[in-house]
Amino acid sequence: MSMNVSEYIFDFLQKKGCETVFMVSGSSAMFLTDALKRNEKLKVICNHHEQAAAMSADMCGRLGQVPGVCLVTIGPGATNAITGVAQAYLDSSPVFILSGQASSKLLQYEIDTGIRQHGTQSLNLEPIVSSITKYFAAVMNEADIVEHMERAYELAMSGRKGPVWLDVPVDIQNRQIPDSAFEKASSKKYETSQCLDISEEQVQTVVQMISSSKKPLILAGYGVRSANAVEALDELSKTLQIPVVTSRGGIDAINSDNPYFMGRPGAYGTRASHFIIQQCDLLIILGSRLSVSTIGYYPKDFGGNAQKIMVDIDRLELAKSDVPVDIKINGDIRLFIEAILSSYKETHQNISWLNQCKELVDKYPVVLESYRKEKPLNPYYFVEQLSEHLYDDSVILTDTGSVCNIVSQAIKLKGTQRYLISGGFSCMGFWAGAIGAATTNKHTVVLTGDGSAQMNIQELATIKYNKLPIKMFIFKNNGYVLIRHNQHNYMNDRFLGVGPDSGLCMPDFCSVAEAYGLESARINEGDDIEAALGEIMKKDTPVICEVVLSEFYDIAPRIASRVMPDGSLKAAEFDDMYPFLEK
Amino acid sequence: MSMNVSEYIFDFLQKKGCETVFMVSGSSAMFLTDALKRNEKLKVICNHHEQAAAMSADMCGRLGQVPGVCLVTIGPGATNAITGVAQAYLDSSPVFILSGQASSKLLQYEIDTGIRQHGTQSLNLEPIVSSITKYFAAVMNEADIVEHMERAYELAMSGRKGPVWLDVPVDIQNRQIPDSAFEKASSKKYETSQCLDISEEQVQTVVQMISSSKKPLILAGYGVRSANAVEALDELSKTLQIPVVTSRGGIDAINSDNPYFMGRPGAYGTRASHFIIQQCDLLIILGSRLSVSTIGYYPKDFGGNAQKIMVDIDRLELAKSDVPVDIKINGDIRLFIEAILSSYKETHQNISWLNQCKELVDKYPVVLESYRKEKPLNPYYFVEQLSEHLYDDSVILTDTGSVCNIVSQAIKLKGTQRYLISGGFSCMGFWAGAIGAATTNKHTVVLTGDGSAQMNIQELATIKYNKLPIKMFIFKNNGYVLIRHNQHNYMNDRFLGVGPDSGLCMPDFCSVAEAYGLESARINEGDDIEAALGEIMKKDTPVICEVVLSEFYDIAPRIASRVMPDGSLKAAEFDDMYPFLEK
Repeated sequence: MSMNVSEYIFDFLQKKGCETVFMVSGSSAMFLTDALKRNEKLKVICNHHEQAAAMSADMCGRLGQVPGVCLVTIGPGATNAITGVAQAYLDSSPVFILSGQASSKLLQYEIDTGIRQHGTQSLNLEPIVSSITKYFAAVMNEADIVEHMERAYELAMSGRKGPVWLDVPVDIQNRQIPDSAFEKASSKKYETSQCLDISEEQVQTVVQMISSSKKPLILAGYGVRSANAVEALDELSKTLQIPVVTSRGGIDAINSDNPYFMGRPGAYGTRASHFIIQQCDLLIILGSRLSVSTIGYYPKDFGGNAQKIMVDIDRLELAKSDVPVDIKINGDIRLFIEAILSSYKETHQNISWLNQCKELVDKYPVVLESYRKEKPLNPYYFVEQLSEHLYDDSVILTDTGSVCNIVSQAIKLKGTQRYLISGGFSCMGFWAGAIGAATTNKHTVVLTGDGSAQMNIQELATIKYNKLPIKMFIFKNNGYVLIRHNQHNYMNDRFLGVGPDSGLCMPDFCSVAEAYGLESARINEGDDIEAALGEIMKKDTPVICEVVLSEFYDIAPRIASRVMPDGSLKAAEFDDMYPFLEK
Repeated sequence: MSMNVSEYIFDFLQKKGCETVFMVSGSSAMFLTDALKRNEKLKVICNHHEQAAAMSADMCGRLGQVPGVCLVTIGPGATNAITGVAQAYLDSSPVFILSGQASSKLLQYEIDTGIRQHGTQSLNLEPIVSSITKYFAAVMNEADIVEHMERAYELAMSGRKGPVWLDVPVDIQNRQIPDSAFEKASSKKYETSQCLDISEEQVQTVVQMISSSKKPLILAGYGVRSANAVEALDELSKTLQIPVVTSRGGIDAINSDNPYFMGRPGAYGTRASHFIIQQCDLLIILGSRLSVSTIGYYPKDFGGNAQKIMVDIDRLELAKSDVPVDIKINGDIRLFIEAILSSYKETHQNISWLNQCKELVDKYPVVLESYRKEKPLNPYYFVEQLSEHLYDDSVILTDTGSVCNIVSQAIKLKGTQRYLISGGFSCMGFWAGAIGAATTNKHTVVLTGDGSAQMNIQELATIKYNKLPIKMFIFKNNGYVLIRHNQHNYMNDRFLGVGPDSGLCMPDFCSVAEAYGLESARINEGDDIEAALGEIMKKDTPVICEVVLSEFYDIAPRIASRVMPDGSLKAAEFDDMYPFLEK
């Protein structure tokens, strides 16, 4: 097997099943680029900014069974990718980053001396990206590449997944790999990907807890998807008749028309799900980190009437003590569910509890009838309508900001649809990940705010060149609505940097789309939606559609603060959402 | 003095003389933002991406006598700024970065445990940005803010300048500062900004070397500008009749019409300057790090006939041993020049050497007469014409790529003009720094390639909103010309990611500019230049002008490789530039 370092890297990834590499070209990645060019099995998408390349790869990591792959060049090429890599790290997405670098001699001099720079464009990446990757290595010797690749790949895909990064000096890129490198690597073993730290006794305890529960509930997070446990979850809830609510990351762990689905709790959640959580007597938390945006401001009271079982692949998540958890299980969620299902013998009847949940869900819909006729357009109504026009296999991405809150509350999922957001990092510009999704899914839909659209607007050129049939909906509210709310609520309307009144103005995105050679559309009123979506969604070409909204609109229900008798603000209880109900 | 942390930060910076803060809003920076809003003396520019905010601040740092200031929010807001911060670090530009952060409790938990994330959007920045800043601190206690500010400010401005970063948790932002904090801080002393590690004996040695030199030469780098030594350099060269050549960073250390100016050496340099360097018998290197792009591929032979004196503020730059240097002096360049001038008593006559230099400069112009009539337009001719249309006080920025090589070779500087590039980092998208320059200079001109224009294209909205009268010239060559050259020269025309033939296509920037509400123009031919520039440069509003070029054009003169008799490639000697001359 005679290959140079660059050829080996792409050959390795292609054989693992990676299909597309997202890149921005650069001379210091010249041999990597050339090996990619000569690899006839890998597809290439050339982004116009490395931030978008990393985010595109991230989406492939979330949607597939192998890491997304991103190739960038030295220095600014590498630092431009950092935001996308941090996002992948926090959202447990496996991504393989490759970067060009100065010659190994120059890099070594920089490392040894701490001089600001010795080469041109060069920067020692180790201190900068180590804390946001599961593995980082500067490849200083061609003999190490086999070991680096195997180790990095295994780490990306095992345990709690995440990004890995190999930085390859330009002189190493075209070195031939010695045969000994393959022998050395094959004798090593790395962390295995599946594990479950639970004894048979513990399984019986959990089974017993479920069995004796009158009001059990599952809270599903992103970990369910990450562990390929969506079907297992479906089986579990159906067999044991346990209703399911989802955190933001877990939204596509269960479809909206599943009879066991009871909504989405959170700071911007569904009201019924909050009542249900506070009423359940057993809460099974599967792959959710119980962030403040999921559980609200009083962690001790979250599911306060329930015993709690938490299953997570990451020991550090289990070690948190905000929410009191009775049973903590470290391991793979699919293995956990299989263990429970194989031990659970009796039939379970929760009909009255299920009916009670269902009544609450029906009583407190997110999208109200009155929204339909609002002018300007009510975004909740738009999302409800959009749900009707999606394909059964659509991939839906929602960017950060008010758009994420609204869509995550209101969208209805079905079929094999996927729903993706920038979870932990909540990164504006996330929409460009649609480029990654669209390489494998022709029904990719992305919703973004105008502020977020701007953060990756250069990528319209990538969509155009590659004819990616992405349907992009831009909530046009002329700025950053969530921050506008914040400055309204806490700063007495002292607005800065949120809209035309305070320092910034958004462009006409229809004109921008057309300047990039893309078709555009605009939806101004509720009555326009049906016709416009019918037209847009049947096209097999990209469409950029502005959805024209007010500059200030309510996002509800949500966990808000109440004004106390003394005038101070106090965060409301988890099940006391705004708009506040009569007691 | 009763102030909260946020009020103090901006009050401090304003009193130091900072005038403008470049920001992108965010709720986790809410009290910082509000304090800025309430500070009536500071101007604010709201960028549309933190990358551009950092670069705008960087330009203020380079152009003024105080740091540029940049305010970003938590997580992605912070990581988006990294490329701009790294650029400022490598180019010794003082920048003050402020970021919002999760509450100090959440951040401390993340630091203590190493969990991926505890808050929302939060990320521990310390490991990520410490290596590219002179000072980083997470402000965990309001009592420490005075000390942090004084220390950070002093470090940004002293020694080799650079960026500093304070990360301020949201709960700390609005805490009142205790009086004791001011007392504690005022008792401390920090590194002083000026120093010169040279004895009187060494001064005499240097004076003697200059005195006995027949062919002295000064190589001026960015350190001259950074030390405010431009006038001192002028005095030195005039008094001692020493010709001057400049590295890329030092281009605006001397005007083109200065009789002692002899050109710009480098990988893409001026031919005469290379001959002059190889002929000089004394080379005084002032604030240049002697990078490969300045000295070529044979450092031992660089100025091989000369004794060398090197003055630099950074000991690590002096410690490098690639180029043999006889006398190394650590310290402030202005102090060095003043020490020499005050010790130098005799008059110096270098007329024949100066004439010899001048003859070489005249014999080898960069812009040839034949360029004028070329079709498509020759970019060198465009730059020559542009030089004629610039104002005496214009600030000229040139983005990275072929445009930087061409403009840096051909532009003629005069008056109080400044010339700025992304030096060490060579970062695409640098053009957005023009937003920073334009806050103090109404004659800001920026030249960029189309690939680089795309990397910050969202900033057209910032230019529009703030009515910044920037004149932006985009070299339209449909891709990345330097990488196209690289793939042509070394990869046998296996092109990937460089143009419409290989994965990407650039938009029509006139249409894009108009979509953002900006005036556009286009220059197609040499004969159009005069009229178009006359029209554009007299406007007091922004204009985005495409300069239409071929997709492949020669960049010369340059240090190239020669094909050896056995077919291998060998980098040419420093004074043997392409196009190769007859021996």
